[in-house]
Amino acid sequence: MKIITISREFGSGGRELGKRLADALGFDYYDREIITAIAGAQGLDEAYVEKSMENANWQRIPLTYRHSFARSALLQAPRTDLLLEQKRVIKDIAKTGRDCVIVGRNADVILAAEHPFHIFVCADMETKIHRCMERAAHGEKLTPKEIELNIRRIDKNRAKTREIIGGSRWGDSAACHLTVNTGGWDLKELTAAVADYVNRWFQRKI
Amino acid sequence: MKIITISREFGSGGRELGKRLADALGFDYYDREIITAIAGAQGLDEAYVEKSMENANWQRIPLTYRHSFARSALLQAPRTDLLLEQKRVIKDIAKTGRDCVIVGRNADVILAAEHPFHIFVCADMETKIHRCMERAAHGEKLTPKEIELNIRRIDKNRAKTREIIGGSRWGDSAACHLTVNTGGWDLKELTAAVADYVNRWFQRKI
Repeated sequence: MKIITISREFGSGGRELGKRLADALGFDYYDREIITAIAGAQGLDEAYVEKSMENANWQRIPLTYRHSFARSALLQAPRTDLLLEQKRVIKDIAKTGRDCVIVGRNADVILAAEHPFHIFVCADMETKIHRCMERAAHGEKLTPKEIELNIRRIDKNRAKTREIIGGSRWGDSAACHLTVNTGGWDLKELTAAVADYVNRWFQRKI
Repeated sequence: MKIITISREFGSGGRELGKRLADALGFDYYDREIITAIAGAQGLDEAYVEKSMENANWQRIPLTYRHSFARSALLQAPRTDLLLEQKRVIKDIAKTGRDCVIVGRNADVILAAEHPFHIFVCADMETKIHRCMERAAHGEKLTPKEIELNIRRIDKNRAKTREIIGGSRWGDSAACHLTVNTGGWDLKELTAAVADYVNRWFQRKI
């Protein structure tokens, strides 16, 4: 079984690259499907689950607050139960034995025993802001500065979640097989380049 | 003109990858040749130049010491004159107009105007120590711990030199087009994978 896991900076195009890579290689693809499965298992709203896991603000909640204000709307508590459910869902994916691409969710750590090929997708800030502006929902008008703050906030949270999950520092090159910068690439062309690289990895003789 | 610049962690195999890549693509290759040129231009010994630039210990010399003890053997002063000469040599390489691979020496910063494809080569510590032990000169018997300390010292110095030269943090993925982890690869097979990737970059339509 071949598993590709992708961590990505917000706005880098990592999700699109993952989807295209799965299509190019004929692999299953998991991203939002994991959120859907968690929400189903826990009887929670999908949007709530997604928001909880992306915006948990782990770092902002002092330990002493966690019990007394756990249900406060202002101080969103870290839903470690959701992280556990996520772990179960991801392990179930691996149990299918099918080749797959999993985007985000620290799947490389959770599935370390399966030796996934782990890709980190990044880009310079200018590329990421440009990409976010291109993809903004109709009517959504954020300034580049506001987008940059969003990118930094979300990525800070991803890094913090990784710290909780365990494993290496988020984005540590030595813990990734390949770190791809999407700047200057058309994602279709980049997908072909990454697919070739990954194929060579899985076919190598070592 | 196509220029590939490579920064590499000590022991990662980045130099060998660079040489193999140049051979595979039919590009000129520069590494020690730069040291030779600097030594020639400055009328200095090659080994001295190399040692000065790899072991300058920039970070260990307090500012107040720099003048009073600049010529002390114990406190080796930063030879910024050598960095300037190096810059000149690297710019001369670009002036030839020939496709090339340049390993180390922050050539990506020096030649930024030529838009080189910049690769960072890294590996996990275990891989790097193993590689250093395999390649140790006959009779050189360092323990894994001693090798690790050497690796950390040399890389710390490379990071510091980059800080002096300017440009991004050493090894910053967003400032590299591709960050390659040599762990688990045979370097011959890895070279083919990287060569394909780089070819797609230079042939892209964007």
